[in-house]
Amino acid sequence: MSKSIFYHAGCPVCVSAELDILSLIGNENVEIVHLGEDAARIPEAEKAGVTSVPVLVTPNGNALHINFGASLADLKV
Amino acid sequence: MSKSIFYHAGCPVCVSAELDILSLIGNENVEIVHLGEDAARIPEAEKAGVTSVPVLVTPNGNALHINFGASLADLKV
Repeated sequence: MSKSIFYHAGCPVCVSAELDILSLIGNENVEIVHLGEDAARIPEAEKAGVTSVPVLVTPNGNALHINFGASLADLKV
Repeated sequence: MSKSIFYHAGCPVCVSAELDILSLIGNENVEIVHLGEDAARIPEAEKAGVTSVPVLVTPNGNALHINFGASLADLKV
């Protein structure tokens, strides 16, 4: 199985969702990307349809926004 | 591992999220509940902090709202 990508920004909602997702799907199946620290990857997230974090982009390219931590727009400041 | 519970209401966003979640977590680890057809389970979902569907309630009780299909309030009509 290809990996999913979990994008976050270090917010409390993000951290909580990350723990749940890793526990459900398994660490080895998820790449974790901190968009606050790695802003170069924001365009790739946008291309996948990401509008807010935390979000899980599945191997087939669907963006599953999980609860709401921060909008992607706010990470670009 | 205890099962997660995926609550939905048959909406297109719900169906898409359901396919992704089952593929990621595995059918055997998720109970699927259609709150439109099984309104008796709405109170239990509310108790878990569910405010909209689709949503995955993890074995440790966290409500992971996935994208947005319909609010729980609208299912009570």
